[in-house]
Amino acid sequence: MTSTDFIAEPRSPQVVITREFDAPRELLFRAHTDTDLLVQWSVPRGLTMTVDRFDLRDGGAWRYQHWEEDGTDHAFHGIFHGEPSPDGIVRTSESEDRPGHVSLWTVTFPERGGRTLLTHNTVYQSVEDRDLDLRSGMRESASDAMDRLAELLTFLAPVSR
Amino acid sequence: MTSTDFIAEPRSPQVVITREFDAPRELLFRAHTDTDLLVQWSVPRGLTMTVDRFDLRDGGAWRYQHWEEDGTDHAFHGIFHGEPSPDGIVRTSESEDRPGHVSLWTVTFPERGGRTLLTHNTVYQSVEDRDLDLRSGMRESASDAMDRLAELLTFLAPVSR
Repeated sequence: MTSTDFIAEPRSPQVVITREFDAPRELLFRAHTDTDLLVQWSVPRGLTMTVDRFDLRDGGAWRYQHWEEDGTDHAFHGIFHGEPSPDGIVRTSESEDRPGHVSLWTVTFPERGGRTLLTHNTVYQSVEDRDLDLRSGMRESASDAMDRLAELLTFLAPVSR
Repeated sequence: MTSTDFIAEPRSPQVVITREFDAPRELLFRAHTDTDLLVQWSVPRGLTMTVDRFDLRDGGAWRYQHWEEDGTDHAFHGIFHGEPSPDGIVRTSESEDRPGHVSLWTVTFPERGGRTLLTHNTVYQSVEDRDLDLRSGMRESASDAMDRLAELLTFLAPVSR
């Protein structure tokens, strides 16, 4: 299994996470847009994810919740910019635990020879906002999520091309 | 007249522009949301601005064009994240001259003693995208725009508070 690269430069409000998968980009796109699949890999380990809204279109709203075992929930919401496609997904994101702090999240799926270099690029309004995510275990969560995504992909049949 | 601060740190995909105005934040908010006012100050000098769409609400779309004297146009569009208010405006932005490159633009209007520290915070998907804006004269355009905004504000009556 390949490993996850996690780039967070000092004094830059950005995190770039990449992972190569032995799968075509259409499969990766499905895993990011079919919410039945999304909830299986993208939530931090130990939490459960429910999706309230996922209006996958230019200007569409999304909102999901992460639930702790004791019933505490953490909700996130935002808006899709542009039409989500295998060329990429761009959306805003705001944690309802910290209203007013918004990030821009870009997912791309560049494919080379049947393998896909999944890239999650997050830019924050400030380095402080980015550092708060880093301190709350973002690196470990991302690595876990990518491992689970790799496992999930082994169950999914490739889309006919 | 106060001067415009322009912060663009090396190797960071961000630009922060600030300018103090002797005006309440409601006036600054109007100048950013009434498109009849917006076109008077926010376009680079020598260009004319027209607004196609400015749907000022959470998830609303905006699009405007900058016209050169020879009729060449440069269009920009995006989506508002959250309800625009004097507490702030957050929106995505994409230049149609360079599709697929998106930035997140946050305007805030913190007020202290009747004066407002207008802040324009832009974060880009990459340092390269940021540097392209810097090389195309962003600093000079911002300084011009803030000077014109200061002039415009002298014509606007304060909102009753």
